[in-house]
Amino acid sequence: MNGPDDASGAALTRDAFLGGQLQIWQPRGGYRAGVDPVLLAASVPARQGDTVLELGCGVGVASLCLARRIAGVQITGLEVQPDYADLARRNAQDNAIAFDVLTGDLAEMPEALRQMQFNHVIANPPYFDRASSTPAQNAGREVALGEGTPLSDWVSAAAKRAAPRGYVTFIQRADRLPELLAHAARHLGSLEVMPLIARRGRAARLVLLRGRKNGRAAFRMHDGWVLHDGVAHVVDGEDYNAATGAILRLGAALPFPAASD
Amino acid sequence: MNGPDDASGAALTRDAFLGGQLQIWQPRGGYRAGVDPVLLAASVPARQGDTVLELGCGVGVASLCLARRIAGVQITGLEVQPDYADLARRNAQDNAIAFDVLTGDLAEMPEALRQMQFNHVIANPPYFDRASSTPAQNAGREVALGEGTPLSDWVSAAAKRAAPRGYVTFIQRADRLPELLAHAARHLGSLEVMPLIARRGRAARLVLLRGRKNGRAAFRMHDGWVLHDGVAHVVDGEDYNAATGAILRLGAALPFPAASD
Repeated sequence: MNGPDDASGAALTRDAFLGGQLQIWQPRGGYRAGVDPVLLAASVPARQGDTVLELGCGVGVASLCLARRIAGVQITGLEVQPDYADLARRNAQDNAIAFDVLTGDLAEMPEALRQMQFNHVIANPPYFDRASSTPAQNAGREVALGEGTPLSDWVSAAAKRAAPRGYVTFIQRADRLPELLAHAARHLGSLEVMPLIARRGRAARLVLLRGRKNGRAAFRMHDGWVLHDGVAHVVDGEDYNAATGAILRLGAALPFPAASD
Repeated sequence: MNGPDDASGAALTRDAFLGGQLQIWQPRGGYRAGVDPVLLAASVPARQGDTVLELGCGVGVASLCLARRIAGVQITGLEVQPDYADLARRNAQDNAIAFDVLTGDLAEMPEALRQMQFNHVIANPPYFDRASSTPAQNAGREVALGEGTPLSDWVSAAAKRAAPRGYVTFIQRADRLPELLAHAARHLGSLEVMPLIARRGRAARLVLLRGRKNGRAAFRMHDGWVLHDGVAHVVDGEDYNAATGAILRLGAALPFPAASD
């Protein structure tokens, strides 16, 4: 659906997520949320009353999906790009979800967040494909963003903001798993990986990585979560399998049980 | 099948592998080869004429399985425990397979091997469960083995012995994947992981890791290889699925295609 321009004049669209349970404004031409933040949100083992921080929340899709699935979570977002942060606040309001969005850089954590720790920290860090990411309107910021905040900073910032025994959950491109695991192993325990694969037998496109602050459980590699049935794309449009469809259209959880330790 | 004692007086058994294509002497009471070296051998992308080095070859199961599957590979084994190295030589002879077994420590690579590089280096490093590993008959050696050769030494020794563009393939406990990946990323490229899982939906018990000397391909996480059908153990004895049975009993390859780069 097309929509009005935002304050900066960028064209927006309003898109349905979770089968219409969420309506999300996002820039037509910039970074556009797909299934990745929805899968991230579906995998977080949060419970009613838990606090959740999303680093780099963009327009808020992951946080708002999580809030839709789990009543009574207290969600906070941090977003470096002011126009995205504004859209996240607007999306929260339009969907009647309480969402505290701070504008700021995770590499220079805002003072308000430095005082806080959360039961869960989640992030969908940039995949570093600049062709599909949003140039910031400010040229200096674009230079900084173009270099990218290193993945190590995302992991260390997440670990710092996680409460004792708190969980950190990331979604990231599968080919960056070695790097992601190396950083995570320095800050977190009870690491677990859930590969996300398009079809049975294929290599993973994405991975979910979870770690626990002060966790002591052994690393676990889970069987991959499959997005599509069959061995090839046979119909036009989305042909997610039933279990994935339930996540994307009904707001179901993605079964990624957390280690008990 | 029970068998005679070896020179040191240890009781031996003679066990069939690959549906009887191999008959393997191994100590009754020590480390006993199971399916792991067979799966390792089945995953190696070797071709006729390739040279292969197995680090820590034990009684030779992985190397001999590989030689049975691929005619004309030239296999070499390195084994630190002389009695195991002797059994590996005996197993090679009894099965009419050419197998050059050197007795020596991979952390102090024998001079003969320092001059050589191989198309493939393979290893099934100890899983560091001392309860299921063999005490060496020499007390001093047992002390050294009890500490274990660090996994980092296995990886660096393998990488050094791999020819340019050569492959290194390891099988290891899944919970050690972060450590294994970190070491491998320092020495090899084109890393690929194939989880080995007991049943669909379970966490992996083992992983196959492959890397390539001077490889430049992105990391790949493959869909897991499943050993058993169904969600639970329903019959007594081995109930491997057909594809795994073909590996274990017929000597089939495990489909783990190597990166082209």
